[in-house]
Amino acid sequence: MQRSTIIVAGGSGTRLGGPVPKQFQKAKGRPLLMWTIEAFHRYDPLMRLIVVLPQTHFEIWRALCMGHRFFIEHQVVAGGEQRWHSVKAGLEKVQGDGLVAVHDGVRPLVSAELIGRCFDAADQHAAAVPVVPVVPSIRETTADGSRALDRSKLLAVQTPQCFHTDLLRRAFEQPYDPAFTDEAALVERLGVKVTLVEGEEDNIKITTAMDLKLAEQGLA
Amino acid sequence: MQRSTIIVAGGSGTRLGGPVPKQFQKAKGRPLLMWTIEAFHRYDPLMRLIVVLPQTHFEIWRALCMGHRFFIEHQVVAGGEQRWHSVKAGLEKVQGDGLVAVHDGVRPLVSAELIGRCFDAADQHAAAVPVVPVVPSIRETTADGSRALDRSKLLAVQTPQCFHTDLLRRAFEQPYDPAFTDEAALVERLGVKVTLVEGEEDNIKITTAMDLKLAEQGLA
Repeated sequence: MQRSTIIVAGGSGTRLGGPVPKQFQKAKGRPLLMWTIEAFHRYDPLMRLIVVLPQTHFEIWRALCMGHRFFIEHQVVAGGEQRWHSVKAGLEKVQGDGLVAVHDGVRPLVSAELIGRCFDAADQHAAAVPVVPVVPSIRETTADGSRALDRSKLLAVQTPQCFHTDLLRRAFEQPYDPAFTDEAALVERLGVKVTLVEGEEDNIKITTAMDLKLAEQGLA
Repeated sequence: MQRSTIIVAGGSGTRLGGPVPKQFQKAKGRPLLMWTIEAFHRYDPLMRLIVVLPQTHFEIWRALCMGHRFFIEHQVVAGGEQRWHSVKAGLEKVQGDGLVAVHDGVRPLVSAELIGRCFDAADQHAAAVPVVPVVPSIRETTADGSRALDRSKLLAVQTPQCFHTDLLRRAFEQPYDPAFTDEAALVERLGVKVTLVEGEEDNIKITTAMDLKLAEQGLA
């Protein structure tokens, strides 16, 4: 079964505050994105890896790979304005059938076990995403303010989100919608049920400077 | 204006894995709960502080306070089975009118600015809670699976949640509901609108061992 992973690293990373895009911020001596790529390569050395970056970051990424002697094979693809455009660009490079995962470039702590669980569930059920309980109370904004939601019914979605490749292609044939949240929601609009897989507490998305310090602890 | 804060530290902290309840786990040399208490004391040295702990933790807490020469005045109250019971027990010790905040014992990184914003908004509007954008995609479980929610409409609630004291008392006169999420939701059931205040990215709730490592970075 051919497995591909699209690693989305299109963000400019302004929330981290530094001039360096967040996927290039270093944890334990090397950019987050390298840790992320390595996690998938470790799970399956034959995994086809497609890394989506803004065109303007190609050069710095190449330089970083040279500097860090990072030789895991991966294809670099130019991303688009929003995540939707970036995933679509990555998906165009995925060849043939099989399974495809979409993963955040700034989720370097994903384990091989979790990657395996997601691919296996997608193999069986066509679409699978890892979820974890929602820790904070959640409110929904309404026309005249906001209201509390029932947290016990809510789940936070992580990546990798895994799919039959042809299913994800069909999902991305739908017209672009600015309300796009993630690939699972897109697939769902085709009437396909998304299978939920148990995610990992540690599989955090590095979006703040504090998260970055966290990542230092978990990487090895 | 009399200000009181109920600091809820009733959790057994099993998620952190250690034998020590999470509010007693140390960051920068002393228990999280001390940092949290100090944050409110710093904001207002006249703040009335009510700390809700399981009865079984009273002795260890007293020993910790002695050992760490922690002399900020606070009243210790026995908590109940669920957070609802614990907050209610704390609220019974709040005297007179004025404003009351409910804060998680394991949110030590709250700033004086945020505490001030919440009390000020509650003073003006009766009920105020800090919120931040929701980072992950959120799914809601349904009778036959789950569905994606529109993340752009969702907000994650932090603490301190601040109220006119008499309003929070009325909210807790309602019968106990196991679906209780937070104080804001409870007040809302009285038909009172909850005002949203801008929260802080760093004001995290320490629920995992990784969070604890994080807290080390932010405390000073």
